[in-house]
Amino acid sequence: MFESAELGHRIDKTTYEAEVPKLREALLDAQFELAQQARFPVVILVSGVDGAGRGETVNLLNEWMDPRFIQTHGMGDPSDEEHDRPMMWRFWRALPPKGRTGVFLGSWYTAPILNRVHGKTDLADLDQSLERARNFEKMLTDEGTLIIKFWLHLSKEKQQHRLKLLEGDPRTRWRVTRRDWEHYKLYDEFQTTHESVIRHTSTAEAPWIIVEGEDERYRSLTVGKVILDAIRKRLGDTDAANKIHAAPLLPPIDKLHILKALDLGQKLEKKKFQEELEKYQGKLALLTRNPKFKKITVVAVFEGNDAAGKGGSIRRITSAVDARQYQIVPVAAPTEEERAQPYLWRFWRHIPRRGRMAIFDRSWYGRVLVERVEEFCSQTDWMRAYQEINDFEQQLVRHNIVLVKFWLSISKDEQLKRFKQREKIGFKRFKITAEDWRNRDKWDQYEQAVCDMVDRTSTEIAPWTLVEANDKYFARIKILKSLCRRIEAAMEK
Amino acid sequence: MFESAELGHRIDKTTYEAEVPKLREALLDAQFELAQQARFPVVILVSGVDGAGRGETVNLLNEWMDPRFIQTHGMGDPSDEEHDRPMMWRFWRALPPKGRTGVFLGSWYTAPILNRVHGKTDLADLDQSLERARNFEKMLTDEGTLIIKFWLHLSKEKQQHRLKLLEGDPRTRWRVTRRDWEHYKLYDEFQTTHESVIRHTSTAEAPWIIVEGEDERYRSLTVGKVILDAIRKRLGDTDAANKIHAAPLLPPIDKLHILKALDLGQKLEKKKFQEELEKYQGKLALLTRNPKFKKITVVAVFEGNDAAGKGGSIRRITSAVDARQYQIVPVAAPTEEERAQPYLWRFWRHIPRRGRMAIFDRSWYGRVLVERVEEFCSQTDWMRAYQEINDFEQQLVRHNIVLVKFWLSISKDEQLKRFKQREKIGFKRFKITAEDWRNRDKWDQYEQAVCDMVDRTSTEIAPWTLVEANDKYFARIKILKSLCRRIEAAMEK
Repeated sequence: MFESAELGHRIDKTTYEAEVPKLREALLDAQFELAQQARFPVVILVSGVDGAGRGETVNLLNEWMDPRFIQTHGMGDPSDEEHDRPMMWRFWRALPPKGRTGVFLGSWYTAPILNRVHGKTDLADLDQSLERARNFEKMLTDEGTLIIKFWLHLSKEKQQHRLKLLEGDPRTRWRVTRRDWEHYKLYDEFQTTHESVIRHTSTAEAPWIIVEGEDERYRSLTVGKVILDAIRKRLGDTDAANKIHAAPLLPPIDKLHILKALDLGQKLEKKKFQEELEKYQGKLALLTRNPKFKKITVVAVFEGNDAAGKGGSIRRITSAVDARQYQIVPVAAPTEEERAQPYLWRFWRHIPRRGRMAIFDRSWYGRVLVERVEEFCSQTDWMRAYQEINDFEQQLVRHNIVLVKFWLSISKDEQLKRFKQREKIGFKRFKITAEDWRNRDKWDQYEQAVCDMVDRTSTEIAPWTLVEANDKYFARIKILKSLCRRIEAAMEK
Repeated sequence: MFESAELGHRIDKTTYEAEVPKLREALLDAQFELAQQARFPVVILVSGVDGAGRGETVNLLNEWMDPRFIQTHGMGDPSDEEHDRPMMWRFWRALPPKGRTGVFLGSWYTAPILNRVHGKTDLADLDQSLERARNFEKMLTDEGTLIIKFWLHLSKEKQQHRLKLLEGDPRTRWRVTRRDWEHYKLYDEFQTTHESVIRHTSTAEAPWIIVEGEDERYRSLTVGKVILDAIRKRLGDTDAANKIHAAPLLPPIDKLHILKALDLGQKLEKKKFQEELEKYQGKLALLTRNPKFKKITVVAVFEGNDAAGKGGSIRRITSAVDARQYQIVPVAAPTEEERAQPYLWRFWRHIPRRGRMAIFDRSWYGRVLVERVEEFCSQTDWMRAYQEINDFEQQLVRHNIVLVKFWLSISKDEQLKRFKQREKIGFKRFKITAEDWRNRDKWDQYEQAVCDMVDRTSTEIAPWTLVEANDKYFARIKILKSLCRRIEAAMEK
C-alpha cells in the first residue's frame, strides 16, 4: 500500500522554484472562485506518521492560499463541553461553511488509531469507528462537501532520520516530543493499523492520497497540485450533487399501513387524566431531580400531523421539569449560517450537555416529511436521509443519550375539527395558517411519507412511539409514561 | 429600599384564579407579536434571596408563556471553554436573538455579589463589577433589547420560615441545600451588598423591580403583569431605539490632525527588510511556541485605508505562527444570526481560548468608520460605539488578552497607484472593486472618522499603533516588531 510512497521522490530546487509561483496563483484563483460561488465547502485532512511534515504542510497551505478563508483545526484534547457530547460533535462544530476551507490536523481518525495501537480497543471497535468515519464522509460528500484526505508517509528508517534531523536543528528542536519517539518505537503496530484504516476508508467519494513525506519540495508540490485539481474539477462540475440515482421506494399496493392500524378511538376520562397527569408529572419531576440524571442527556423528538397537539404535550412535560434543565428547539426554516452547512448541522448544534433535556418541536425528520412531500429537496437527498438519520441517532444513543421519538397521529376529521376551533379561539388563532390548509390537501402523500419514515427509522435503539392523539388526554399520558419509562431504564443501567 | 417588599402583600385564591387566564392569554398574545415582529429581544433577570421563589417564577413563566420562544439559563459554574475567555463571554453567547426571550437565573450580578459577601473582593472591586454591569445593560438597551430585572425579596424571618416550609414538604425538600442555610446565616452581609447592587444598577433603561417573594400568588401575578406591560409598551413604541440625541463631534477647525503628522516617507531597503523579517519572524515563532504562550491570548486588529496592505502584513505574521494557533477573522457584512444580536456579538463569538491568536481583518471599528461614513447606522449608534468599544476592550485586557490594534495609513496618491496596479495583476484583480473606488471619493470623511476613532479609542490599555504604510517593507517590520514587543511584555508579567 505504501510502496509508491517509499520510492524516494524528490524535486530539485530549480524545478520547485519555477513551479511554485504558478501553483500559488492558480490556488488563489481557485480559492477566490470557491468563495465567490459559495457552492460547497472544502475539508482537507492532513494525516500520516510523525515527522512526515504534517504541520509544515498545513502552514504552507496557509501561506500559499488566502488564510482568511481557511480555518485550521489542531483538534487536541476535547474540552469539557465537547466531552459532554457525542464524539463527532466537535467535528460538526468545526465544519467549514460553503465557500470556505477547513484543514484538520487531528481528525475523526486520530482517536481510533491511537486507541487501537495502545490496545485500548479491539479490531471490532476499530471497524466500528471506521464505519462511522465512512458514513460521516459519505454524508458530507453527498451534501456537496469536497473532501481531500492526505496521508503523509515515511518508512521506518526515514522516520528515524527525520526525527533526528529535526532534533539536531535548534530552530526545529521544539517540534520533536517524547511522544514522537514513543510512537517511533511502535512503528510496526502503527503501520498495521494505518493500513487497515486507509484500506477501509478509501472510498470513491473520499479516497486517501498517500504522499511520500521525506522531501519537502516533493511533498509540498504534490499536496498543492492535488488540492488545486480537486477544487478546479469541482468548480467546473455544477451538477456534482444529485448524481446518485436512487431506486424509488416501494409503492403502496394494498391499503394496509401502520397508521391505519392505530386505534384512534382510545380515550381517557378527565378525572382519570388528572390523576395520571399528577402521578407521571410527579415521577418525571423526581427523575429529573435525581442526582443520577446529571449523567444522562435526554433528546425528545415531537413530530405529528398539524394540530395533533405537540405543543400541549410538550408543555405537560416541561411543567414538571426545572426550566434550567430543558431547552425546546422549535424547528423552522434554516438560517443563513445553517444553509451553508450539511443538513444535520443545525440539529447537532442543539445537542445538549449531560444533565439536560432537549425537546425538538419538529426535527431532522423534516427532510423525509415536509421536504419530501413539498419537493424542497431532491429525491436523492431524502432517500439518503434515512441512513444519515440512523447514523446520527446511533451516535446519540452510543453516547448514552436517551432518545425518544413521538409521532402524534390524528384522523383527517379530527384535524378539520381542530383547525376550525383554532380559528375561533383568541390566543390560538395564530396557530393556524394558510400553509396548514395546504398541507391538509396532501394528506395521503404525508401519510405515505410517515409510513416510510417509521419503517426506515424505527430502530431497536431509537424506536418511534406512535401516539393515538385524537383524544388529547390519552396522548399526553401515553407520552409522559413512555418518557418516564425510558429515563428510568437509562438510570438503572 | 426593601420596605415595600416587606408589607406582607397577599392575593387571595379567587382573585388569582380570575386574573390568571386573562394574563396568560395576554402574555401569549404579546409573545406572539414579539416573535412576529422580531424587532427586539427580551432579557429577564430573576434574582433575589434564596427561598424567595426564583426557580418557581421561572418555571411559571415557561408554563404561562410559549416555552418554545424562551430560553432559560441557569448559569452555574463556567465550563472550561468559558473559563478561558473574559467573564462576560458566557453571557454574550447566551443572549436571545430578536423576537425571543432569555430568562437568566444566575446573571452578571451573581459572582460579584458572592465574591463580595465571602470577602474575596473589596468594595472597589464590587463597584467596578457594577459599572461593567451598567455599561453592558446600557449597550443592550441602546441596541434595542428590553431588559426586565426582578429582585425577589424576603425579610430575614420570612426567609427562615420559607426554607423550613420547603424542607418540611417531601416534594420540595430537595430544593433546600446546605448552601441555602449558610446564606441565611449571612443574611445581613448579603443584604448590605444587595442594597448596594440595586442602588448602583437601577438605571432609567433597566431598573430593578423589587417583588415581595413570600406569597406565591402575589409574586406570580406581579411578575407576569410587569412583563406583559413592558413588552406591550415596547411593541407599541416603534421608535424606541435612536431616541438618544447626541451632540455632534467637534468639527475640524484647522487642518491639523494625527494622520497628517505621520511621516509617510519612511522606507526600508529590501536587503534590510529581509534581514529584519527573518529576525522578527523567528522571534515571533519562538514566542508563540514558548510554553508561557499557552496562558496568553492575542487579539490583533487590522484596520487601514483600502489597499494599505493589511493582507500582506497579516501573512507576514501568520507564516511565523503555527496554523493551529491562529484564526483570521475576515469581517464582512453580518449574517442573519448576527443581525439578530447586539452589534458586538459577532466579535465576541470569535474571541479565542488561551494559547491562541485571533487576527481581525477589519473589526468592530467598522461601526465608527464605514458605517459612520456610509450612514449604515444612525449617528447615535456610532457615537455610543466609542464607549461600548472601550468597555469591550477593557474586558479583553482585564482577562490578560494582548490586544494590538494597527491602523495602516497610506497617502491618497499611493492608494491610486496601488488600485491601478491591482487592476493589472492576475490574482490581485479580485481585490479591487467598484466599492473601493466609491470609498476613495469620500477620502476626507474617512480621514475625519479615523482621527475621531484614534482620539476616542486609543487608550492606555489598548493603544492604536499607527503604521506608515506607503512603504510596505517599513510597515510590515513595524507591525511585526510591535507585536513581538507586546507579546514579550505580556509573558514577562
